[in-house]
Amino acid sequence: LNKFKGKLIGVTSKTKKLGKDDPRRIIHSVKMGLALSLISLVYYFRPIYDSFGVSTMWAVLTVVVVFEFTVGATLGKGFNRGMATFLAGALGVGAHHLASLAGEQGEPIVIGFFVFLLASAASFSRFYPEIKARYDYGVLIFILTFSLVSVSGYRVEKIVQLAHQRLSTIILGSLTCVFISIFVCPVWAGEELHNQIAVNLEKIADFLEGFGGEYFQTELSNGESALDTKDEKLFLERYKSVLNSKTAEENLANFAQWEPCHGHFRYQHPWKQYLKTGGLIRQCAYRVEALNSYIKSEIQAPPEFKKKIQDACIKMSSESAKALSELASAIRTMTQPCTANVHIANSRIAANSLKTTLKTALPMDTDLLQIISAVTVTALLVEIVSCAENIAESVHE
Amino acid sequence: LNKFKGKLIGVTSKTKKLGKDDPRRIIHSVKMGLALSLISLVYYFRPIYDSFGVSTMWAVLTVVVVFEFTVGATLGKGFNRGMATFLAGALGVGAHHLASLAGEQGEPIVIGFFVFLLASAASFSRFYPEIKARYDYGVLIFILTFSLVSVSGYRVEKIVQLAHQRLSTIILGSLTCVFISIFVCPVWAGEELHNQIAVNLEKIADFLEGFGGEYFQTELSNGESALDTKDEKLFLERYKSVLNSKTAEENLANFAQWEPCHGHFRYQHPWKQYLKTGGLIRQCAYRVEALNSYIKSEIQAPPEFKKKIQDACIKMSSESAKALSELASAIRTMTQPCTANVHIANSRIAANSLKTTLKTALPMDTDLLQIISAVTVTALLVEIVSCAENIAESVHE
Repeated sequence: LNKFKGKLIGVTSKTKKLGKDDPRRIIHSVKMGLALSLISLVYYFRPIYDSFGVSTMWAVLTVVVVFEFTVGATLGKGFNRGMATFLAGALGVGAHHLASLAGEQGEPIVIGFFVFLLASAASFSRFYPEIKARYDYGVLIFILTFSLVSVSGYRVEKIVQLAHQRLSTIILGSLTCVFISIFVCPVWAGEELHNQIAVNLEKIADFLEGFGGEYFQTELSNGESALDTKDEKLFLERYKSVLNSKTAEENLANFAQWEPCHGHFRYQHPWKQYLKTGGLIRQCAYRVEALNSYIKSEIQAPPEFKKKIQDACIKMSSESAKALSELASAIRTMTQPCTANVHIANSRIAANSLKTTLKTALPMDTDLLQIISAVTVTALLVEIVSCAENIAESVHE
Repeated sequence: LNKFKGKLIGVTSKTKKLGKDDPRRIIHSVKMGLALSLISLVYYFRPIYDSFGVSTMWAVLTVVVVFEFTVGATLGKGFNRGMATFLAGALGVGAHHLASLAGEQGEPIVIGFFVFLLASAASFSRFYPEIKARYDYGVLIFILTFSLVSVSGYRVEKIVQLAHQRLSTIILGSLTCVFISIFVCPVWAGEELHNQIAVNLEKIADFLEGFGGEYFQTELSNGESALDTKDEKLFLERYKSVLNSKTAEENLANFAQWEPCHGHFRYQHPWKQYLKTGGLIRQCAYRVEALNSYIKSEIQAPPEFKKKIQDACIKMSSESAKALSELASAIRTMTQPCTANVHIANSRIAANSLKTTLKTALPMDTDLLQIISAVTVTALLVEIVSCAENIAESVHE
């Protein structure tokens, strides 16, 4: 019993955390419940139920499978479902008619052949990346409807009536979903993507902001910083989620293409540009990942050498951090970033001054081996500065 | 018309490429067609059709949505669908009975309330990562079935009969899918994951193998290598797909958990270990990505310095390449890698000899700035060697 109690407490705290992390999850669940109860009421309105009959259940079915977290995903699925049902229904009626010409013996064979052919072809089409991205669900529904319609043992007039009913109920269900997802606390995939890009930029900026202090801290204040190590470590780890953000971004961009004009975004906003920027940010994140391993590295450069490069390095990383967070806020407010270029220029200057330092700083008796890691750090920082430049260019577009 | 013709040719060549890249795609499509035609025949077997009636369509529906590319995914979906239908059906009958106690006026309200409550709760549960990974589809079907059953206007006895029919047809459909996916050219998610890990290792090994030649080529044979540049570039780019392999690997691991014992794999093979190894390989790929940017870098170290580190660097990268491809083939054959450790030890030795070289090699008048990139390259290679060590350890487990 105690074990059960412990588990219950665990689940409760997890639920609270899930809800707190993103309250829109709770809102989404409530919206789903709302949409379903609304569509269920159709069963109790005699005039509607009478005209649709058993097909009413397709409205319920549609709501359950079409309703998604973002507006774009809901619209895409609803559109796919409606179109596919219509197309496949028409084809199915045709196939059914053709097969019935073959007589009672031949019918199953002809139908089986048609189903086999179309199902195979449609399944294969799902491997095309373009179709997979936008019409995957539609193809599924196409196969489904085509088999159901062509196989069902009804006469053609009966089928046409059924198809009409089913299409109307599916459209009714889709419209309910679309309305609720647009008008009740909408979650726009485009906005999500937009924010995601800004957040990712900020995460990297956070890292760069903290990196200087973290890497050179050992001689700065060895005692003090041990206390807040845990907090600091946490924000130094945040960038890791950027490394694997590709799939999520691509999905959001796909959904966003379905969305009408909303907020600051018009229909057919250049979502591809976001993917490009996202890719550049990931490039930067890979460098950061390489950089990160040097914080924990055991072989540290001799302090006197570190001290020489310290100022320039800290300047480089903090200026690029400023540039990146400037870019992030420019994305958020959708304005041209005005001072980002200044910061990038500053970090370039720091990089150049570092180069001159390096030319002169090397004492004759230095062990090159010992400064390897420090030199690598500076090289990676220079790389990151140019990444930041690329990102800035991409954002300007 | 010409435009259309051009498009047609484009699509045809694309289709050929898709089929050639992975012939299992064609097989999968044919299997899908086969499963559907088989289940469609049920409509024409009078004894089965008579006992199931209109519910037969649920068998077709099940086949379309349950049939997936890998055995694991099919099994998982089939299991989810069956279990969810059973549970939700039982609950739905209960809810329907309770609601009918409320009288004709109260019924819609009580039902609406139940549907709202369960749909919201179930939708929210889909945000738990554990449920999302394994039972996402089940929860969807749960909501679907519960709403359909509790809302439908039938009497309880009629519902029980319907529920029974539907469950049987769904089980029939699922079994068809499972049988065809297991016995006709099966694609095991576990094997996919296994091969994916090996392929990823090989991709990185390829890069490391080629890196030495590519980076130091400028002075080796400037004229000759320009010819096969394109081919070489291609295999130097192959590792890029490793960077974003996380989602695919996690999905495969999820599917693999559903699979029974097959080939060299038993049920509940330690798939988690694969994910861990995959993560380490990605760590290594991030370093490779950082390394790759130096091949194209404009600032190259002075040739005499490069020459000094050349042997050790090439040794390091080719020995780690050998170790990695050794590990890859060990994974493929599921044996203990015997010589991988030797190669790793060799690359360690090379790294150490490089260190001593560096201690002495630095001419007094060297411009540190110029050798920065070369030094960084060596540092990254050292990192990669230790990554390779971690991977080796992980594979041993």
